[in-house]
Amino acid sequence: MKFQTPRGTRDIEPNEMIRYEYVLDVVRRVFEKYGFDPFDTPAFEDWRLLSAKQGGGAAIKEEIYYFRDKSDRELGLRFDLTVPLCRFVAANPDLPKPFRRYQIGKVWRYDKPGALRWREFLQADIDIVGAGGMEAEAECLAAVCEIFSALGFQDFKVRINSRKIIEDFVKSIGVKNATDVFRAVDKLEKAGEKAVAEELKAKNVQKAAIESILGFIKLQSLDDVRKRVSSEGTAELEKILSLLQGWKKNLQVDMSLVRGLEYYTGPVFEISAGENASVGGGGRYDDLIAALGGKNTPATGISIGVDRLVAVMSEKKMFTLPKTAAKVFVVAVSDKVMENVIGIVNSLRKLDIPAEFDLMARSLSKQLAYVNSRGIPFALVIGEKELASGKAKLRDMGSGREEEVWLDRLEDVGEIVKQA
Amino acid sequence: MKFQTPRGTRDIEPNEMIRYEYVLDVVRRVFEKYGFDPFDTPAFEDWRLLSAKQGGGAAIKEEIYYFRDKSDRELGLRFDLTVPLCRFVAANPDLPKPFRRYQIGKVWRYDKPGALRWREFLQADIDIVGAGGMEAEAECLAAVCEIFSALGFQDFKVRINSRKIIEDFVKSIGVKNATDVFRAVDKLEKAGEKAVAEELKAKNVQKAAIESILGFIKLQSLDDVRKRVSSEGTAELEKILSLLQGWKKNLQVDMSLVRGLEYYTGPVFEISAGENASVGGGGRYDDLIAALGGKNTPATGISIGVDRLVAVMSEKKMFTLPKTAAKVFVVAVSDKVMENVIGIVNSLRKLDIPAEFDLMARSLSKQLAYVNSRGIPFALVIGEKELASGKAKLRDMGSGREEEVWLDRLEDVGEIVKQA
Repeated sequence: MKFQTPRGTRDIEPNEMIRYEYVLDVVRRVFEKYGFDPFDTPAFEDWRLLSAKQGGGAAIKEEIYYFRDKSDRELGLRFDLTVPLCRFVAANPDLPKPFRRYQIGKVWRYDKPGALRWREFLQADIDIVGAGGMEAEAECLAAVCEIFSALGFQDFKVRINSRKIIEDFVKSIGVKNATDVFRAVDKLEKAGEKAVAEELKAKNVQKAAIESILGFIKLQSLDDVRKRVSSEGTAELEKILSLLQGWKKNLQVDMSLVRGLEYYTGPVFEISAGENASVGGGGRYDDLIAALGGKNTPATGISIGVDRLVAVMSEKKMFTLPKTAAKVFVVAVSDKVMENVIGIVNSLRKLDIPAEFDLMARSLSKQLAYVNSRGIPFALVIGEKELASGKAKLRDMGSGREEEVWLDRLEDVGEIVKQA
Repeated sequence: MKFQTPRGTRDIEPNEMIRYEYVLDVVRRVFEKYGFDPFDTPAFEDWRLLSAKQGGGAAIKEEIYYFRDKSDRELGLRFDLTVPLCRFVAANPDLPKPFRRYQIGKVWRYDKPGALRWREFLQADIDIVGAGGMEAEAECLAAVCEIFSALGFQDFKVRINSRKIIEDFVKSIGVKNATDVFRAVDKLEKAGEKAVAEELKAKNVQKAAIESILGFIKLQSLDDVRKRVSSEGTAELEKILSLLQGWKKNLQVDMSLVRGLEYYTGPVFEISAGENASVGGGGRYDDLIAALGGKNTPATGISIGVDRLVAVMSEKKMFTLPKTAAKVFVVAVSDKVMENVIGIVNSLRKLDIPAEFDLMARSLSKQLAYVNSRGIPFALVIGEKELASGKAKLRDMGSGREEEVWLDRLEDVGEIVKQA
């Protein structure tokens, strides 16, 4: 019997995983440059934490992988990295504030799998806990903008909104339950305007109010918004925009953005790169830590969807990475020279040049076929002649060009490999 | 209500996570130098795969976190990274061989938690699939030895044995079921010789044979072993030792080493660093891929227990790492200079110097208290005087020493920070 990965999950093969490693290196470097420290939490959490009603909300609760351990503890796989962070902060009230942490880890949601939609996915999050001012939002957004820019995106978009604005607006037109409006509007992109209207109607929102809402969520300029509603929310967005003038062309006010998770209380963001593919998002969640038993503590953050990001970059051919980490395969022309070949491989590794040799006693041509199939960029061919003369040919497997190198000057191999 | 991490799991706070990042950087760099490519698999797998009887064996099966998803699929959290690898190889018979991959990921076992024993732990594995010769073992062992050496361990020990030797030996003394012997001997370290003897007795092994086994597993030299049994197993160990002469002082033949997982078929290894703390192990598992529906494919590998490794290094005070990734905190003496402070922070970040500023409108002394509590090594104090004169003091928070720097030459800050 052969086995497959469970539905909605997948293996990440080396040529793709090399792309992940590259992206995560950039992500980590920028996060740390912005003063965020690494942090980690367990893959599973207390079910009562994950299902807390002030957490992700009813929709997410349905998507959590639930199980019991052998002592009958109720557990679940985490669906985000924010709730575990708030659990930690709630339990550690004396943590120096602001607590700026990044966390890179998998999360799980039993969602309908599809293109760019998996049940297991990798998130890279930054959050600032303890700071209520919009400088915190600006810090998180600036770090994320720098990452997208460093990865080569010219025209990524960060849409921003504030739940406070929508709340104030719906109150001003006589609608009482803002959460109903958030839930309905959140479906706009997937299901369209008509579905939003129908859901609002089902929640007993009046026809005039529905039309008013559908009009309002089309607004994409703060000036237009201020003509309808002026609130703390608009002032906060204005402050964020003023702090991020360097990223002005990438920021877009968008009243239709509400985000799905229920714990957001203020500004919300969503990042898209390429054809509307959301590759991240976040927002402020000032009530969550207190709801989980902690002190009243403001907090905000953003999450990057790493799998989607890698997929979008692959589709746009933005990677120029090798297929393998190995750089040089030292080919043994015959068994007799194997000991010397291993010696050369060891010397290359001592020079920090990733190198390997044949482990399967194969012929010269089969070794070269393997080098090609793995995508190893260089082959150094060693036979008795080469050992006698002290020089050998380094073959560039892409171009077929060969360069002669002295075996007692293997650092030259390093130079050639680096330049390629 | 406050929540805790589930029993046997834990959060990893920044000062500790920085140690993980450091160790994993070394691990990745060495693995790649040895020609291993990154790879990833899902956290959970088909229950039938995880519980396959040719896999981890009965003892492990009891420790697997089992659950059903919302479509009633039977799943489990992976207990190692080897079974998922074999599942992948079995399903992809045309993969170029040898397939050399590394994988860094969490695994889960419902074991009794204790010192250096968690229910969630991080493994860093390398495996070579497709090569039957001992060169594959030597490659894996050399990479791991280089990692331990690079991390600063002088006297780590790699114990090696071969299940083939034990099998041949027990057969030679008339004991039929080698698996019973493996299971009993595996308990030697934890439970002692008497417990091993009792378990063997319970399995109907004769008294003379038990004594013979207890004598044999004390052997720690290949010469002594060969006086009792000469087999493919001894020749294989000899070959491994001859290929790893550079690590001779770290290698130790040890007939008491059998390893717990049932899938091993040949050489087995265990790495200890410090007072007998096992920080890794592995071995050859030539039958597992075929057992999981694949072609007959030899394979071998080693796993490093990253949590234990970090814990041992912490205990031995082997880390000289900062508590935070941030290097410079730019202190605003008053609110008036905040815009300039943000400008300086941005300039430092452009120079790749991790920097941050106060997000909580705090006084000078409270900002400095925060810098201390976070462990940020430098503070650059900015007031109106500094802006007017164009120079400011960079305070080394450890020594209290201050150095004057020009605000239009922030690259000097980079130099000072680097030298610290």
